Amino acid sequence: MALDTSWYTEIHTSEGSAFSLKVKEKLHDVQTPFQRIEVYETEGFGTLMTIDGLVMVTDRDNFIYHEMIAHPVLFTHPNPKDVLIIGGGDCGTLREVLKHPGVTRAQQVDIDEGVTRAAELYFPELCDSNNDPRAELYFDDGIKWVKDAAPGSYDVIIVDSTDPVGPAEGLFSAAFFRDCHRALRAGGIIVQQSESPLYHKKLINDMYTAMRSAGFDSTLTLNFPQCSYPSGWWSATMAGKGGDLSRFREQDASNKTFKTLYYNAAIHRAAMAQPEFMTT
Amino acid sequence: MALDTSWYTEIHTSEGSAFSLKVKEKLHDVQTPFQRIEVYETEGFGTLMTIDGLVMVTDRDNFIYHEMIAHPVLFTHPNPKDVLIIGGGDCGTLREVLKHPGVTRAQQVDIDEGVTRAAELYFPELCDSNNDPRAELYFDDGIKWVKDAAPGSYDVIIVDSTDPVGPAEGLFSAAFFRDCHRALRAGGIIVQQSESPLYHKKLINDMYTAMRSAGFDSTLTLNFPQCSYPSGWWSATMAGKGGDLSRFREQDASNKTFKTLYYNAAIHRAAMAQPEFMTT
Repeated sequence: MALDTSWYTEIHTSEGSAFSLKVKEKLHDVQTPFQRIEVYETEGFGTLMTIDGLVMVTDRDNFIYHEMIAHPVLFTHPNPKDVLIIGGGDCGTLREVLKHPGVTRAQQVDIDEGVTRAAELYFPELCDSNNDPRAELYFDDGIKWVKDAAPGSYDVIIVDSTDPVGPAEGLFSAAFFRDCHRALRAGGIIVQQSESPLYHKKLINDMYTAMRSAGFDSTLTLNFPQCSYPSGWWSATMAGKGGDLSRFREQDASNKTFKTLYYNAAIHRAAMAQPEFMTT
Repeated sequence: MALDTSWYTEIHTSEGSAFSLKVKEKLHDVQTPFQRIEVYETEGFGTLMTIDGLVMVTDRDNFIYHEMIAHPVLFTHPNPKDVLIIGGGDCGTLREVLKHPGVTRAQQVDIDEGVTRAAELYFPELCDSNNDPRAELYFDDGIKWVKDAAPGSYDVIIVDSTDPVGPAEGLFSAAFFRDCHRALRAGGIIVQQSESPLYHKKLINDMYTAMRSAGFDSTLTLNFPQCSYPSGWWSATMAGKGGDLSRFREQDASNKTFKTLYYNAAIHRAAMAQPEFMTT
């Protein structure tokens, strides 16, 4: 059955697959110096933001991604205080990070102010914590930001980027990971969105190689569903500067002082399990 | 971007979403007394079989579903010998079941011989075990089959059905579960595909109610990715006639004598974790 023009469609060309959401109306369409940002009201997924035609966030399922890029790494680090978010312009990751009472400073560095301005208008709940006194929002080049950071400035770096093409390409390189390694304190952890286990096994393996060559001594991929991203199955990969990434503060996670919709201690353990095809 | 007619599309009307696969050619189109069976050659997912326009199986991702509907339940039961598969006409579940050397008999009862005939032609690898001496293939009404079964005939019943509309509707009823309960031995387990956690939370909860009211004393849902099914996230729900469904033969699963692509002992444990939104 063909889809008429009332659908937004993201085609995953190399996989021959596509995901579509039925649209009620287009709310926003802005070409920034970096990318094209569109916002739609959909029939079943609430508000949808796309960047260069690719799904970034929907009301209905962004909770899984934002919780899984933030909470596992923060409950793995023994005592995270200083957090850097590269990308994350929709502010949903920042909101999850600031749910952790021990975090004293969360810097968000997105290259494109247009993403945050659109989020403030169309995803106000994701921007709930933008005025938290611990939050610092910068609109700058994340790669340069990390290169210029003082050594040992951060406990956790979260790379909440778009796909590894265009502005985000450099965020998947060994050079960037070396700068992150330097910017982290001992025991620090980086976590980065790492695409689909079904579609991008090679990319994930290449990330392991790049992270190890940058000085990180351990890597661990977390897997989770993400309906509106290619294949409906997504991942985030952690790399550690010392420490055991497979151990986390389970007691703290079980007694977390904030609400989540997807994350809990059992889900954290579950996300670390690797499908058989990833282990060979 | 609109999709032209070279795409197969499954629309999930109530959710306002759709999944599409780019098609090279249609190989098969048969209207049986029960349903319409179509087979396509796709660009990225190999061969695709649809029933009444809905994805049943693709070469690329059927391994996850077939492994997850078969291996967790068989490693949860202490010693499964007699297995009944209701539906499962593509024979992929049967193949996984027969990988367990302790299984002495696996009966497959699908209402529509057309599905198996198409699978033999277009998914021959799924039919690898159809000639195993332990395999018995019947083309009959699964609901009636279970109603007529002698009490205590089976150790495990696997309901590998289409969605709960049309021929499969009765497979989600308390009456059917009562017949399954009677047909199982003490310690027996039924497992049934239970749709998407994101899209069908109510259906899963209704299944718990129906299974408990049918006499089962425990239920447990297993979650796993399934790219080509609605939302890309799928589930199977077990119900037990005695026994603890959260315990399984971990040692046997770790030392399994057969190859899998998705399932392993860690994935089994992981699949039992419930997202926070399912626990409230």
